[in-house]
Amino acid sequence: MAVETAWVGRLVSREHKREDTVISVGKATIGGPHLTVIAGPCAVESREQVLNAARLVKAAGATILRGGAFKPRTSPYSFQGLGKEGLAYLAEAGQKTGLPVVSEVIEAGDVPLVSQYVDILQIGSRNMQNYALLRRVGKSSRPVLLKRGLAATMEEWLLAAEYIMDAGNPAIILCERGIRTYETATRNTLDLGAVPVVKALSHLPIIVDPSHATGNSAYVLPLAKAALGAGADGLMVEVHPCPRQALCDGDQSLSPEEFKELMDQVRRLSGALGRGVVKP
Amino acid sequence: MAVETAWVGRLVSREHKREDTVISVGKATIGGPHLTVIAGPCAVESREQVLNAARLVKAAGATILRGGAFKPRTSPYSFQGLGKEGLAYLAEAGQKTGLPVVSEVIEAGDVPLVSQYVDILQIGSRNMQNYALLRRVGKSSRPVLLKRGLAATMEEWLLAAEYIMDAGNPAIILCERGIRTYETATRNTLDLGAVPVVKALSHLPIIVDPSHATGNSAYVLPLAKAALGAGADGLMVEVHPCPRQALCDGDQSLSPEEFKELMDQVRRLSGALGRGVVKP
Amino acid sequence: MAVETAWVGRLVSREHKREDTVISVGKATIGGPHLTVIAGPCAVESREQVLNAARLVKAAGATILRGGAFKPRTSPYSFQGLGKEGLAYLAEAGQKTGLPVVSEVIEAGDVPLVSQYVDILQIGSRNMQNYALLRRVGKSSRPVLLKRGLAATMEEWLLAAEYIMDAGNPAIILCERGIRTYETATRNTLDLGAVPVVKALSHLPIIVDPSHATGNSAYVLPLAKAALGAGADGLMVEVHPCPRQALCDGDQSLSPEEFKELMDQVRRLSGALGRGVVKP
Amino acid sequence: MAVETAWVGRLVSREHKREDTVISVGKATIGGPHLTVIAGPCAVESREQVLNAARLVKAAGATILRGGAFKPRTSPYSFQGLGKEGLAYLAEAGQKTGLPVVSEVIEAGDVPLVSQYVDILQIGSRNMQNYALLRRVGKSSRPVLLKRGLAATMEEWLLAAEYIMDAGNPAIILCERGIRTYETATRNTLDLGAVPVVKALSHLPIIVDPSHATGNSAYVLPLAKAALGAGADGLMVEVHPCPRQALCDGDQSLSPEEFKELMDQVRRLSGALGRGVVKP
Repeated sequence: MAVETAWVGRLVSREHKREDTVISVGKATIGGPHLTVIAGPCAVESREQVLNAARLVKAAGATILRGGAFKPRTSPYSFQGLGKEGLAYLAEAGQKTGLPVVSEVIEAGDVPLVSQYVDILQIGSRNMQNYALLRRVGKSSRPVLLKRGLAATMEEWLLAAEYIMDAGNPAIILCERGIRTYETATRNTLDLGAVPVVKALSHLPIIVDPSHATGNSAYVLPLAKAALGAGADGLMVEVHPCPRQALCDGDQSLSPEEFKELMDQVRRLSGALGRGVVKP
Repeated sequence: MAVETAWVGRLVSREHKREDTVISVGKATIGGPHLTVIAGPCAVESREQVLNAARLVKAAGATILRGGAFKPRTSPYSFQGLGKEGLAYLAEAGQKTGLPVVSEVIEAGDVPLVSQYVDILQIGSRNMQNYALLRRVGKSSRPVLLKRGLAATMEEWLLAAEYIMDAGNPAIILCERGIRTYETATRNTLDLGAVPVVKALSHLPIIVDPSHATGNSAYVLPLAKAALGAGADGLMVEVHPCPRQALCDGDQSLSPEEFKELMDQVRRLSGALGRGVVKP
Repeated sequence: MAVETAWVGRLVSREHKREDTVISVGKATIGGPHLTVIAGPCAVESREQVLNAARLVKAAGATILRGGAFKPRTSPYSFQGLGKEGLAYLAEAGQKTGLPVVSEVIEAGDVPLVSQYVDILQIGSRNMQNYALLRRVGKSSRPVLLKRGLAATMEEWLLAAEYIMDAGNPAIILCERGIRTYETATRNTLDLGAVPVVKALSHLPIIVDPSHATGNSAYVLPLAKAALGAGADGLMVEVHPCPRQALCDGDQSLSPEEFKELMDQVRRLSGALGRGVVKP
Repeated sequence: MAVETAWVGRLVSREHKREDTVISVGKATIGGPHLTVIAGPCAVESREQVLNAARLVKAAGATILRGGAFKPRTSPYSFQGLGKEGLAYLAEAGQKTGLPVVSEVIEAGDVPLVSQYVDILQIGSRNMQNYALLRRVGKSSRPVLLKRGLAATMEEWLLAAEYIMDAGNPAIILCERGIRTYETATRNTLDLGAVPVVKALSHLPIIVDPSHATGNSAYVLPLAKAALGAGADGLMVEVHPCPRQALCDGDQSLSPEEFKELMDQVRRLSGALGRGVVKP
């Protein structure tokens, strides 16, 4: 069946640009023939923790380091992140390991601050339709990683990317991270159908976050492989030097050994899928 | 069965405050024995349009005037509202009719501006978990109307209110406006179960918006009556002097005649429910 | 906005028959100007229990007695109902109180047996698309109460009714009982938007079951009133002489006192809604 | 994180049986180290069509032939399948190609008839909680392919399998086929998280049907590969000699060429996943 394209935005659509968008950040590329793996802790907890995490994910083959400094949390009484201090630790860990870093920005006014420390600006699920924030990162020179909203349709998600691109920033990485459904056996329902649909409708790269989707480290490896099978351009996974001590999302964080195993399997799979893995 | 309360926030919970919160704005009160009806156009389109709307909803018995000036829209190419100019028209219409006004604020930085013009600050569905914005209105002296997120659980919604109250503002009006489900016969699925659940868990007033929930003016009246049956403290409905010419959401806007009929039926019902309607 | 009708079935549609279908069973009528209340225990547990239940719901004003004899249960190890014995107890209770009775049939082959004992055949949510069963009750002379499937669209539900009507039985009562969504504060999400939509699209009567929708007796009364506000033709509520001892769904069953209170409020509301309540 | 197992059934659980269940049907095995591919048309339309389909899927490497004879359809006016005649054509096509066949049974009373023609009895999504039917196939000596209900939780699905196993039949193949969510870009949302969750909780094999999940042949190949990445034991895909002429679900049916490409890619992937593909 022919793919329906009438509903998409303009600038993000395949009609506007036939060839795939490839985004380069340091030595990493997202969207080309090679797979990218973004890894690191949910939250930056300390200088030592994020440095350890950076070293171990680099050693296993990750190409980009992640870590949250500003954490949007459902309850005002939950740990909200280390803020500017966390950004500094993350940037230092990136420099010492040679990995570009990505971290979330949750407020338009914080874009200049966060941009000083990170290579990629992340827009989280809760902010996918925070249009003031979208327009602000649309004026930044940093690439933007745009997570799908918890209950956003693919159309709404692509139109959120359209806001960023319409504001002037064409370097957008889409990230599927699970949607809200009635099922409770996993935290969210990873919608891998979004990968081929987005690829059909848009030229933007798309990666998958199996950690937030499942909320359970036991399911991260199979869903990471599933994401690559579906055609994703890469993965974003949570890795913690010691998941049991994590201040945030420990249940879904991979241990160093689990992440090493994931990277081994990703490499094995990438050949069969006709894609290499970016060398860190 | 006893109602489960373990999961709620602190300040917004019935444990923290047993008696119902009642919020007064001008002559209107929300949350007490009387029902409140907020009405007006989806978007302020012109000085004349909002003034006409204000006069007709006042004449029919509405107690608060609504009108959008900053419109969060899924597509960057849709009408985004008149902004500051729209706020001025809305404020003028409120003054001329003696009705307090409510309008949405979509960015933390806009709170001072919007507060100059409106009596109640509205947080829309897309921003229910925009914590920077919640904290900012939490520092305002204006009451806040907090719409439920499109796919927010009641717990997440109450915790969003907790952010506002924790920041210092106890005057919060919750507004159920439909949640996203698989059903497409109505735009969203109005979750009236939220009314008794919120009443059991929290002391905050709750009103219902049947216009956004259904997306179809033909269903607004029955669902408005349903909302009152469920125990809601009031309604928020879209009314346009000429729905067919509306720039936004015309399909769900009541005509002047339909709104008059709705107010007549609300008054008739309020007696049987043991509640009066606030006199405008 | 005009109501969209292109998608509906033939025989069940307003196009096929403009005037409302009214169904008479004993002294009860469903779908006319008067409201009907079906009440009784989730499951028939004993001769004494259902007789007590029948007497108390009759005394409070219910017009039809409900009670499950064949219970479809998620686990094969849960109580599955008393079967034929339960039907006999139910029929006896109906005869002694003069109330027509309704009970669920879960298998096409059981239709003749169940029809010997009951006045109305109920099709449960899990069987809404059990077409063999729909066709079989479509050949029965008994009215059919067709519950909406847990995740059925209104269109699918009306088309299930179309199966019954196409097989020859025009006496169908639709029953909204909550749909499955992401929200867990209530067992299901009662979709009262279905009431005006179904009324617009079909001539069939529609009632609402707030007991299964919420799974919590504390929320039954407000949602019962909401259902009537939405325009429902009646209610179906679970009442148990002693909810704490119920073998099934005790949490959502009303006590005798709670049911009496519900009937009092229903009567008060019915006047304001321009509808009387059928005299038992 | 340890996998939560408290909620599962007894006989289908890993606690009851640690090792994976492997089911043999003719030369095909489901659940062992090799991947199985079930393919064929949505509906048997004619003797010639199903024979052509059987030959082409056999040639490409499928190990089991599918084809619907009794079709459960949302509308009573849609094509309902050829019934017994269709079963005979399907059986003949299976014999001529040496492929075991699977077809759906939609009514308990039809189990003996359908069992005369097929090697595997399929229970469709709409009947996942048709307990009379589950118990009846539980008494059959044929393996059962149990599709997940459209809005069934994994727990409910495993408990449906428990009904079958409790009735005496341990040969059950689970089939994930997409769940109902708010997203409309694909017909359903394929829930690949179900694969590792079911593998953790149960010893039963699980396969995936990407055709029904997406409703669009363009998305079948990527989601087939995703399913294998997630750890599924096989696939069930719709293939039609000429999709444009299909009486049912033509949009989601693969053409002969597309199916050949799928099988090529499945074979390439299976090595990287450490699993071979069953030789037809």
